[in-house]
Amino acid sequence: MKTYFTPGPSALYYTVQDHLRTAYREQIAAISHRGEDFKNLYRDTQSNLQQLLGFSDDYAVIFLPSATEVWSMLISNCVAKKSSHIVNGAFSEKFYNTAKTMKVPTQLIEIDHGEGFQMSGINVDEDADLIAIVHNETSTGVSQPLEDIYQLSQASQHALLAIDGVSSIPHPDLDFEKIDCAYFSVQKCFGLPAGLGVCLVNRKCLEKAQVGAGERALAAHQSLPKMFELATRHQTVYTPNVLGIYLLNAVCKDMLMKGIDQIRRETEYKAAVLYQTLSSHSLLQPFVKQPEYRSKTVVVGEMENSKRLIEYLSSKSMVVGSGYGQFSNDHFRIANFPTHSKEHVEQLADFIAAFE
Amino acid sequence: MKTYFTPGPSALYYTVQDHLRTAYREQIAAISHRGEDFKNLYRDTQSNLQQLLGFSDDYAVIFLPSATEVWSMLISNCVAKKSSHIVNGAFSEKFYNTAKTMKVPTQLIEIDHGEGFQMSGINVDEDADLIAIVHNETSTGVSQPLEDIYQLSQASQHALLAIDGVSSIPHPDLDFEKIDCAYFSVQKCFGLPAGLGVCLVNRKCLEKAQVGAGERALAAHQSLPKMFELATRHQTVYTPNVLGIYLLNAVCKDMLMKGIDQIRRETEYKAAVLYQTLSSHSLLQPFVKQPEYRSKTVVVGEMENSKRLIEYLSSKSMVVGSGYGQFSNDHFRIANFPTHSKEHVEQLADFIAAFE
Repeated sequence: MKTYFTPGPSALYYTVQDHLRTAYREQIAAISHRGEDFKNLYRDTQSNLQQLLGFSDDYAVIFLPSATEVWSMLISNCVAKKSSHIVNGAFSEKFYNTAKTMKVPTQLIEIDHGEGFQMSGINVDEDADLIAIVHNETSTGVSQPLEDIYQLSQASQHALLAIDGVSSIPHPDLDFEKIDCAYFSVQKCFGLPAGLGVCLVNRKCLEKAQVGAGERALAAHQSLPKMFELATRHQTVYTPNVLGIYLLNAVCKDMLMKGIDQIRRETEYKAAVLYQTLSSHSLLQPFVKQPEYRSKTVVVGEMENSKRLIEYLSSKSMVVGSGYGQFSNDHFRIANFPTHSKEHVEQLADFIAAFE
Repeated sequence: MKTYFTPGPSALYYTVQDHLRTAYREQIAAISHRGEDFKNLYRDTQSNLQQLLGFSDDYAVIFLPSATEVWSMLISNCVAKKSSHIVNGAFSEKFYNTAKTMKVPTQLIEIDHGEGFQMSGINVDEDADLIAIVHNETSTGVSQPLEDIYQLSQASQHALLAIDGVSSIPHPDLDFEKIDCAYFSVQKCFGLPAGLGVCLVNRKCLEKAQVGAGERALAAHQSLPKMFELATRHQTVYTPNVLGIYLLNAVCKDMLMKGIDQIRRETEYKAAVLYQTLSSHSLLQPFVKQPEYRSKTVVVGEMENSKRLIEYLSSKSMVVGSGYGQFSNDHFRIANFPTHSKEHVEQLADFIAAFE
């Protein structure tokens, strides 16, 4: 078996094989998404996610097929006049491009890839309905400190604040009172097969969506008011990925058992090991220069011809990700997710240190 | 273990447990959907589906999260002036309602639930871009003979013809030259976990979608031209359910090994056993009165207080579905999918025959 350190999909959470067996034995894939068993599963998953992440009852848990669907859902439901996009990498740019192809007016606030934002310099337009910001750029390994995000929230109370935590949640200890929406994909930090996105939205998002809902030409499965209403009854508009939800719930329970504080501490320790290894190597270095903006969950390094390192690690049965887009030849990306044990990360770091 | 005869989700295809084990061993969930392994999987799945179902190279295989998404995709891409809906049950009605909430002009051609259409009496409006027809109404167990559908196609060449085969494909031996689109969900006849819809669309659908594509306010993952173009390169717009596609491919291969003709013959034999049992019982009868319209894959019976029969069968570890919507008290529904063996169906029929 290879060890996948690719930044999503990545190695499965180490308990998933057992959960798949149980799911098969309990015939989870045969239960109807309109029946009581599914409603109980939805309720339980919501409650475990809530315990793990700390959002209030003001939030609904909405299951979508992937984070890409979250973007179009937010644009088509929560933006009447304008959406503002803080762009510093490929995924924040994709959200911005989604808004443009959906033909809503946009504000683009852009800085160089690989850098974090100085929030004091950001002025969100007065008529913006929504601010889209990435907590953790999977493409470059830049992570924006939460305090900066809250400062932006404080300064822009007229707009909803939506946080892309695709490849960081549950690591950040988010204060859900200071934001309005956060979303993630299960194939990143939760270590699950791809095919499920989770969107947490509060009532302010619902209220924004309700304005003008009657005029919008949206199918039921694209309508936030419809999704929100069904979510409160633990139902979905369309046939959901029931097995995916079952596995998410099971992994949430495992994480609660281990303790989210413990998971966060281990993530930080492992990130420190990796950055230390990159910083002290003569041929490579962390891509993100300012330590306060370095992601704890996606560690990105740069070097000349990164393919050589990737192939060397592959020969040791360790699979790390290549650079994203324009950085494909010069970067390598290492996922540091809860399933990656300290031992695995230390071994990876030793191999990298020995690379010449 | 219970035997699920619910009309989707239903019992898993009998090889799925093995395939899940192999998928885990081969680390399928960790492969990137932008890499060569995924492209090869997509190509292989397309080729095996093509062999099984017999569509030409003119068609693209598009993976969507569920059949519900197919409806909104067709409406937003392929309908400029009007969509015509032939409605004889809850699911054909849901497609019609999707068109209405998406605010396109519609033509409604409706007959009583439980009946098939006399195609000679159907006049599709001249300005219709799309005709939506259900091959197999999962809600009532009505199936429209293919010859009727082809006759409609012949008479309405100005419009695209989209076939809902959600709960019948791969049973119908469709002539893909006479239609333009067919779609299904994997949790019905393919016996897979829910979370994947498959849409087969030809170039006529693409051409219709290309007209006015620039003006539409659609995100990339909602745009048929974008999806079609990516599908030809064995790619998807968003992170797909890779494990679901892997399992679909594996079950396709199993079905090809067994032979699609054999599967179709067995389906017809099992359907005959079930309808014979229903017809000869003093307390119950088939809901669909005209035998030519009776579905081979979803057998619906009617009786007073169907809950009594459902509970009796449940006590024998056989789970059949309740009636849908308005028929919840009077109907019961039995899935007759490829995973349901002759032995299981005969046993179920014996239990039903002994019910008093």
